[in-house]
Amino acid sequence: MINVGIVGISGYSGGLLLELLLNHKDVRVTYVSANNTTGKVTEIWPRLKGATKLMCNKFNATQAADKCSLIFLAVPHTVSQKITPDLLKKGLQVIDLSGDFRLDTAAQYKKWYNTKHTASHLLKKSVYGLPELHREEIKKADFIANPGCYPTAAVLGLAPVVANYGQNIKSVIIDAKSGVSGAGKKAAVELSANEIKENFKAYKVLNHQHAPEIDLYLNKLNKLAAINFVPHLLPIKQGILETIYVQLNKKVTLKNIHTLYKRFYKTERFVRVATLGKQVEIKNVVNTNYCDIGLALSEDHQLLVITSVIDNLMKGASSQAIQNMNIMHGFKEQEGII
Amino acid sequence: MINVGIVGISGYSGGLLLELLLNHKDVRVTYVSANNTTGKVTEIWPRLKGATKLMCNKFNATQAADKCSLIFLAVPHTVSQKITPDLLKKGLQVIDLSGDFRLDTAAQYKKWYNTKHTASHLLKKSVYGLPELHREEIKKADFIANPGCYPTAAVLGLAPVVANYGQNIKSVIIDAKSGVSGAGKKAAVELSANEIKENFKAYKVLNHQHAPEIDLYLNKLNKLAAINFVPHLLPIKQGILETIYVQLNKKVTLKNIHTLYKRFYKTERFVRVATLGKQVEIKNVVNTNYCDIGLALSEDHQLLVITSVIDNLMKGASSQAIQNMNIMHGFKEQEGII
Amino acid sequence: MINVGIVGISGYSGGLLLELLLNHKDVRVTYVSANNTTGKVTEIWPRLKGATKLMCNKFNATQAADKCSLIFLAVPHTVSQKITPDLLKKGLQVIDLSGDFRLDTAAQYKKWYNTKHTASHLLKKSVYGLPELHREEIKKADFIANPGCYPTAAVLGLAPVVANYGQNIKSVIIDAKSGVSGAGKKAAVELSANEIKENFKAYKVLNHQHAPEIDLYLNKLNKLAAINFVPHLLPIKQGILETIYVQLNKKVTLKNIHTLYKRFYKTERFVRVATLGKQVEIKNVVNTNYCDIGLALSEDHQLLVITSVIDNLMKGASSQAIQNMNIMHGFKEQEGII
Amino acid sequence: MINVGIVGISGYSGGLLLELLLNHKDVRVTYVSANNTTGKVTEIWPRLKGATKLMCNKFNATQAADKCSLIFLAVPHTVSQKITPDLLKKGLQVIDLSGDFRLDTAAQYKKWYNTKHTASHLLKKSVYGLPELHREEIKKADFIANPGCYPTAAVLGLAPVVANYGQNIKSVIIDAKSGVSGAGKKAAVELSANEIKENFKAYKVLNHQHAPEIDLYLNKLNKLAAINFVPHLLPIKQGILETIYVQLNKKVTLKNIHTLYKRFYKTERFVRVATLGKQVEIKNVVNTNYCDIGLALSEDHQLLVITSVIDNLMKGASSQAIQNMNIMHGFKEQEGII
Repeated sequence: MINVGIVGISGYSGGLLLELLLNHKDVRVTYVSANNTTGKVTEIWPRLKGATKLMCNKFNATQAADKCSLIFLAVPHTVSQKITPDLLKKGLQVIDLSGDFRLDTAAQYKKWYNTKHTASHLLKKSVYGLPELHREEIKKADFIANPGCYPTAAVLGLAPVVANYGQNIKSVIIDAKSGVSGAGKKAAVELSANEIKENFKAYKVLNHQHAPEIDLYLNKLNKLAAINFVPHLLPIKQGILETIYVQLNKKVTLKNIHTLYKRFYKTERFVRVATLGKQVEIKNVVNTNYCDIGLALSEDHQLLVITSVIDNLMKGASSQAIQNMNIMHGFKEQEGII
Repeated sequence: MINVGIVGISGYSGGLLLELLLNHKDVRVTYVSANNTTGKVTEIWPRLKGATKLMCNKFNATQAADKCSLIFLAVPHTVSQKITPDLLKKGLQVIDLSGDFRLDTAAQYKKWYNTKHTASHLLKKSVYGLPELHREEIKKADFIANPGCYPTAAVLGLAPVVANYGQNIKSVIIDAKSGVSGAGKKAAVELSANEIKENFKAYKVLNHQHAPEIDLYLNKLNKLAAINFVPHLLPIKQGILETIYVQLNKKVTLKNIHTLYKRFYKTERFVRVATLGKQVEIKNVVNTNYCDIGLALSEDHQLLVITSVIDNLMKGASSQAIQNMNIMHGFKEQEGII
Repeated sequence: MINVGIVGISGYSGGLLLELLLNHKDVRVTYVSANNTTGKVTEIWPRLKGATKLMCNKFNATQAADKCSLIFLAVPHTVSQKITPDLLKKGLQVIDLSGDFRLDTAAQYKKWYNTKHTASHLLKKSVYGLPELHREEIKKADFIANPGCYPTAAVLGLAPVVANYGQNIKSVIIDAKSGVSGAGKKAAVELSANEIKENFKAYKVLNHQHAPEIDLYLNKLNKLAAINFVPHLLPIKQGILETIYVQLNKKVTLKNIHTLYKRFYKTERFVRVATLGKQVEIKNVVNTNYCDIGLALSEDHQLLVITSVIDNLMKGASSQAIQNMNIMHGFKEQEGII
Repeated sequence: MINVGIVGISGYSGGLLLELLLNHKDVRVTYVSANNTTGKVTEIWPRLKGATKLMCNKFNATQAADKCSLIFLAVPHTVSQKITPDLLKKGLQVIDLSGDFRLDTAAQYKKWYNTKHTASHLLKKSVYGLPELHREEIKKADFIANPGCYPTAAVLGLAPVVANYGQNIKSVIIDAKSGVSGAGKKAAVELSANEIKENFKAYKVLNHQHAPEIDLYLNKLNKLAAINFVPHLLPIKQGILETIYVQLNKKVTLKNIHTLYKRFYKTERFVRVATLGKQVEIKNVVNTNYCDIGLALSEDHQLLVITSVIDNLMKGASSQAIQNMNIMHGFKEQEGII
């Protein structure tokens, strides 16, 4: 049994982390904070009335260190880098859900997040928390950069083909679609229901900060040429579907590719490769930690079409963070997230 | 052909007014303004690209008066009362879509809108623009208080029974449900898609500023006792359905009530009384100026159940405003709104 | 540890029952059946891939009796009455989610369900499974009629005031709104997304089969006069909100009513009475077994306004069925449903 | 003024055709038919109550020919080919909204629609009704194959680059997303709101019958190699967005491509090329005949990203059919559809 804390309880991933952790057998949530609200947690999340009496305060590193040994940071990027150095120094384990420690150089961070990194010495200290590819490192880690939602679906969807056919891949196009919770809990006209409902659009075309993250972790598997990433905003609350087009320069059969994927994820509980001919759907993974992957192939054009779905708030954020904690502490990997 | 202007072009009812008026045969839109945005109207409403080259400026009464003879005010309450006196003085006709000139006393306004009325001398000058009940006054009016969305559905739904059975009505309960466009174009967490979608709630229970408006205009038909109004927020964009419960102290038959309603609205193009046994639905009135009314009765309990639907942005705001203009100017009543 | 079965696995409440029971510590699901589909359960519910290897067959009472000691019937009304007598005779415990055994006379059943009851001798044998009001009977029961979704929200919302002020209640109006999952998994144009989305309507006005169920169980608390029930179809998947209007003939204060409700449900984990001034919302109970209740009062009109929300598939069906099983077997009441 | 008829009035595109045509200055709708419903048209479309008194009958070619000179066929494929030969023989003009006469050989039809074509002699007689590319032929036509929804957005989105850079295009990927009205008015579990809402999936991956149509009409502009088409089902009612990836083997600049598109559609009222940096959105074209096109480019990867949006029921079906009629008869091209 360990004591854990959550910084950023008022956002969607922070709130969901709490809801999940309250039912986790091996942890006690002993500290929560938010900067824009204080008081009873159940005032922020009336859903949790009856389930917790936690009080929420402004973040204070000393209090946090007194009360828990592991901290989840569910805060916007730029905030994590400000508080992480101190938390690590105080000996806490940190699982950071923001984008602050996922890229590996200050230059890349500056380019994509458009602001200077103030704790860039820690960029190489974090372990990228995608358990299916980095489990051994996670086991020994004290500082996790929890993957972005889009990269989780993209990297899991592409890993088998990249690892095995990297040299035959001419280009990759990721056409990604995400529900609105991905944009966070914000007051903004463009996120208002009347603008989102019955609408659909692309945004940050070829220019999203998750693109270099996808690039970086795929290239750890195999050198890849051109990756193109185009996100869209789906009028749903939770869920991501990415349709990934892999242009090969070699004849393959769908059956071989399917076998490759089945084998690659054979021992992975949370990645499910669809039966050939079946489509993956967001509804099958909502409120779960699963990533479902579907496959199709144009033999004529040597084009592989991968569909990958996750719940952006779960496998794309909160439940994956818990999966990482479970691995770090030797808990059952699925504890609290199934 | 008259020249008209719209103040408050960046809001939902202002934008819709423009879209409708651009196809109106008898008017030319010659002036539009907004206080938070300037520049091309099509930057605010890309939908209208190709349909207009109007430029939007900050409101200026003199410019408005130079360019048009009739002004629609699609601004929040408190703004209308500031600019209306000057516009009237300058000789413009004013159709005000805000709540500023619908109630009849400064005290009532203060009580429900929670702020002092600064042009209360005009409260008795405005004509309430519900054409089905006030057409003769509207014909002669220069200053229209365009009805609120909830009151439009409520008063049209209740008028026949109130006018004919007022003395037999013990109580009225209006359970109203509105789409989110009713809340206007605003940056607010509680209006964000992730909060609204798959959710439903009541708000301002027994305490909404449209309650006294409903009260006032029903009581002009007949003295009524208790009217109770409870609004709810529907996870749709446009549309209001009100389920209205009228407790009678007298035996009636559904057939008689139905006949009464059919007769009452016999010559009204925009009110449709449903065949007995048929339910009205929001989808049948969306993007139209219609109000559809359905009727049911518990003979045992002498309880009449009226369902009334409108599009809150159309009959509940913009198309009704145009209907009023059409009547004022002797245009075809349905011009531009069908 | 007990072995349980589910009949009607292909419907929404059957599928959800399975999903919940697979994580219940004290039961093993050993039998599932459906009449329109056979084969792997995960073909019907791909969400559950990896979580179960159960096979689904056509219903067979002998097989069911061999494999389990308690059966959930998640079948349409008329089907339950056909198979229940045999299951009870074979010594199984039955929790019936259909409407077949909720009313207390064959005549009432015939009137509201429009078909003859073929097992009416069992109508008085079933225990109505609303734990908050009937827990002691449920403890000893072998045959549960699991409450309807609308009645669950209505009876819980009304119980305190009916029990304490029954004689002062002149009339009750229940304006109910339900998500589409309440209509079941059906091929029907009127349930198709293009008809439901952005739409809203009342249906079966004053004529829904849940009305007599509400009547029956409220009258067990106190003799009541007129109850009126009007359901509407919300364009959401899961959730019910009922706005309940109670006309009193006696002065009360909101504070007293609120205290009464807090006391009435003091020891009930799954009913939460909202702080005065706070509104209940469907999102706070979705995917939970909670019923949240809000209160408001018009002192002038002596009209009490109760808002009651549940998840129709959870507290309104599947999780309540599990709550009943937990009580019957002395398991922790919240096991598997929180 | 001409007399027109609509066959298939009970479907979405048939109903919308009627609603539009009732406000068209130059036509009179004198005949409507449906095979599954007869009686008042307003029973099928209560929205139109007050706007028409048309009666709907089973289709009868002689009656149709008596009553009108131009017929819209808003029927499923296979039905059109059965009735078109006779209608043409009787001298009527035919605008067919089905897929029956869009492909140019019986073999292609058999391959993609999976059934034999029974009027294949007419395949070369139809004119493909995409006005922006085929206006001159349409002017002289008596028999129009109205384009499919997906092909309309795809071909308009690609035409300028294909016409000008065809030889430099290595591959085209069309990632298409459509609202549910595209599936028609059908009783089907998979189209029910509870399955569609909050969900998203791909379907008929690389295998949709609109793929050869896109292929055919793009190849008339320029010889193209690999076109890949993957459709998805959006949880909205109306609207298509296609994200189109064009892999070039030549350096281009975004500015040049943008200029090319602006020029190509310079005189086209219904195609709007977005300002560079602006995204197109479904909401801007819903209920209009517009096609909006956005452009982005990865210079590094020589990948052009085109986004193309239309309303699938309007420009993708009914309003485009009217645009065709307007051109055939020399009416104002925008009459009745703006």
